[in-house]
Amino acid sequence: MYFFEVGKLEALGKHVILELHDCDRKCLSNCEFLRATLLEACRRAGATILGNSFHVFSPYDGVSGVIIIAESHLSIHTWPEYSYAAVDIFACGNSLHPERAVEFMVKELKAGNHSTIELERGIINSLVLHE
Amino acid sequence: MYFFEVGKLEALGKHVILELHDCDRKCLSNCEFLRATLLEACRRAGATILGNSFHVFSPYDGVSGVIIIAESHLSIHTWPEYSYAAVDIFACGNSLHPERAVEFMVKELKAGNHSTIELERGIINSLVLHE
Repeated sequence: MYFFEVGKLEALGKHVILELHDCDRKCLSNCEFLRATLLEACRRAGATILGNSFHVFSPYDGVSGVIIIAESHLSIHTWPEYSYAAVDIFACGNSLHPERAVEFMVKELKAGNHSTIELERGIINSLVLHE
Repeated sequence: MYFFEVGKLEALGKHVILELHDCDRKCLSNCEFLRATLLEACRRAGATILGNSFHVFSPYDGVSGVIIIAESHLSIHTWPEYSYAAVDIFACGNSLHPERAVEFMVKELKAGNHSTIELERGIINSLVLHE
């Protein structure tokens, strides 16, 4: 005889919200530097990169960029006029190390202040099969 | 004589975290349906679409997709095996209506349950110039 037991609550993804303040303004308006930095942050986190898309906006050369990874995504939006960047790292599975991407981004953008919030996404009841 | 006064706290962006549970599984594994749905959600929110990137993952045909908009981004990651989708709507400026995108996504993916969290991103002190 088999039966399912409702197991512990489990999150399908980890979503790290990273606020980067007092950054180097030149970095925040340099699209190719940001693309290279985010790609390297993905590699350091152990992510498998699938594609990326970056855009520059007038009048302050703010940049929006997203990297799609096999484990979800990493995004950045910059406001050079406020020395501020908003970063998101969405990681599913347990094989990624988003904290390594955070550490790298803080250093490369020369953030004077930063904060992170970690959200658990997709909280479900795991089902355990018993004989 | 001119001087700056530190004004009220101001957020540069609004980030809506949308959890969609008990969705229609067929919708969640249909990449072209999801692309069309997210593009329409962006239009309903009043966003200017710049580009999109969608990928399908084995073994359950989960889909990851991101749409870059002039006002930031909209993303989705689906787990058809759990009838679950994680959606993010990052909107800067005050011209967008992310709640219209939320309403549309809930309806189109036939979500039985959903929840939203709204985060204010990039909280800064606005500076006011006085004579």
